[in-house]
Amino acid sequence: MNFSYEIKKICKQSGARIGVLKTPHGEIETPVFMPVGTCATVKGLRREDLINLNAQIILSNTYHLFLRPGEKIVEQAGGLHKFMNWEKPILTDSGGFQVFSLSSLRKIKEEGVEFSSHLSGERHFISPERCMQIQHSLGSDIIMAFDECTPYNATYKQADEAEKRTARWLKRCFEEAKDYENQMLFPIVQGNFYKDLRLRSIENCVPYARCGIAIGGLSVGEPKEVMNEMLDFIMPNMPQNMPRYLMGVGSADCLLEGFSRGVDMMDCVLPTRVARNGTAFVKEGKLVIRNAKYKNDFTPLEQGCDCYTCKNYTRAYLRHLVNCGEMLGAELLSIHNLHYLINLTKQIKQAIYDDCLLDFKKEYLKNFTLLEK
Amino acid sequence: MNFSYEIKKICKQSGARIGVLKTPHGEIETPVFMPVGTCATVKGLRREDLINLNAQIILSNTYHLFLRPGEKIVEQAGGLHKFMNWEKPILTDSGGFQVFSLSSLRKIKEEGVEFSSHLSGERHFISPERCMQIQHSLGSDIIMAFDECTPYNATYKQADEAEKRTARWLKRCFEEAKDYENQMLFPIVQGNFYKDLRLRSIENCVPYARCGIAIGGLSVGEPKEVMNEMLDFIMPNMPQNMPRYLMGVGSADCLLEGFSRGVDMMDCVLPTRVARNGTAFVKEGKLVIRNAKYKNDFTPLEQGCDCYTCKNYTRAYLRHLVNCGEMLGAELLSIHNLHYLINLTKQIKQAIYDDCLLDFKKEYLKNFTLLEK
Repeated sequence: MNFSYEIKKICKQSGARIGVLKTPHGEIETPVFMPVGTCATVKGLRREDLINLNAQIILSNTYHLFLRPGEKIVEQAGGLHKFMNWEKPILTDSGGFQVFSLSSLRKIKEEGVEFSSHLSGERHFISPERCMQIQHSLGSDIIMAFDECTPYNATYKQADEAEKRTARWLKRCFEEAKDYENQMLFPIVQGNFYKDLRLRSIENCVPYARCGIAIGGLSVGEPKEVMNEMLDFIMPNMPQNMPRYLMGVGSADCLLEGFSRGVDMMDCVLPTRVARNGTAFVKEGKLVIRNAKYKNDFTPLEQGCDCYTCKNYTRAYLRHLVNCGEMLGAELLSIHNLHYLINLTKQIKQAIYDDCLLDFKKEYLKNFTLLEK
Repeated sequence: MNFSYEIKKICKQSGARIGVLKTPHGEIETPVFMPVGTCATVKGLRREDLINLNAQIILSNTYHLFLRPGEKIVEQAGGLHKFMNWEKPILTDSGGFQVFSLSSLRKIKEEGVEFSSHLSGERHFISPERCMQIQHSLGSDIIMAFDECTPYNATYKQADEAEKRTARWLKRCFEEAKDYENQMLFPIVQGNFYKDLRLRSIENCVPYARCGIAIGGLSVGEPKEVMNEMLDFIMPNMPQNMPRYLMGVGSADCLLEGFSRGVDMMDCVLPTRVARNGTAFVKEGKLVIRNAKYKNDFTPLEQGCDCYTCKNYTRAYLRHLVNCGEMLGAELLSIHNLHYLINLTKQIKQAIYDDCLLDFKKEYLKNFTLLEK
């Protein structure tokens, strides 16, 4: 087997872990923040940028690649790594979340989901088996189960049914993917905000979790306290001997909350998405570079930051680029924001080594605000 | 004086020249193709890209920088080089061409031009003196005279008056800029497509041309034969002992036509502009990457090309990026297109050394088409 996970250190204060996940495309040290490249490109960045940022693994998306360019083209290219020229590990999301987000455009049946492309309106059908086959064509290292995600306001009945279907679909995913070499299937724990359903989902997932398991259905509109409380409940019930991946969550405060509860992998589109709107992550929260006060501010985005952007450019120049709608503005802010989260993860790792992650988190969040400055 | 120009070689077959222009920010070997960074950024590219492309000098634009971020902010930053973090030479266009392109939004008087910002509608006034002052604040190495450019269909009377005003304004530019250290003013030859006016303009420019002179008012809508014929007339009448800059012209065929007639410097927005629309320059002309036939074409844009894009990515991937509207597509095609023109200039230089530029041009254009493939 080409995958293994080894825990190197457990923080005595928090229980958070440092580990090494081995994949066919290299090792990943956890905790890890994973940049998102939905359409086989982390928006605006080059592979060299990602390497310089010490990105260990990137995400891509089955739904988007299925629509464009189509998984067969990626397969003909020799897989996603070759297609996009990225040699390190890749995780593909199953597209389940995207398909369910289409709401009125999709129809869920036991066999799978019928949906209309958000691009062309064309009708498509994806079953758990088809989802595995697409991810097999893509050739990503970590492939995700095809699950049913429910919104924050789902009723118990809806959450219960979705969890049951997710469990049945997981079995079908596993059957389809069990002989895939060089690809590891991560089951996804669902159950909405109902503790008994979450517990049942974990039980349903564990038999199919060989070297990784994910938590889905969080960060779907609920207040952060609600998410953290649910994590408090979920994490002690999760298997210990494999990486635990909290899906689609990754602002600075969320990284601190997740990793300190024993989450090992996180991802989020936020750092590149807000960069394109001119927002930079800084130690105190968010900096909106369009603000007039930065027009002749010739200091870097963040004093002391050693990212490419901060070493080479000033707030005044970045503001100018963003104001003019210049691509370089989005590129440079994306680099800074990814560096910020990857660097925060590095500091979190150090705090795990030093058995003081809860202290570190408290100290960090003391001066941190979600408001824009 | 911080500027000098030395001719190293004259092609026996064509009369084209190789020379070295010394500037306060380094030497430029001519003939040179200059990438355009209108708003203090070559769209989508990093300084490292430009350095790797062997870009020797870049262009920026007085009109655009005057409006955003304003020349005073650039001056406070320590000048344009510091503001945009580019240490090699910079040439700023005077903004004359842009102001005159505003047509209904501007009013030309002897004192200067009153115009409305194309962004905000705000009224502004730029005189020859003000234009010099702005470029002085920007701190570019080569500054351009504030001229009046006429369209292809201008009457003799219009062209005559514009040439006379350009001459009077040049004198005022020169007076204003004569004590600028580290900045070289290039006069601009106008006169539309009337040979006597072109000749008079050259006579009017020469007294103020110390280390460089430009040809404006070409590539303003006329057929290419008309431009080449006018160049045939103009070039033998231009001063020999300084670089001759043909403004705003720079497709592959134009580089061959211009440089082979003794032009030393050229620039064009085309390579980056068409890149953003998915068009790549190749030896045979243009390649439109959106075409369906490239969807599973896993060869580089151009076989044998050693640019970053061709060494790392396939047509299929580039097509995917462009189809998805991904920034990286524009970045990679821009790199390829700039490499193509800079590399063509390198080959032209070699042909000058080998005294065979006319043969090289003929051979190159034999398989070259302006049509898209």
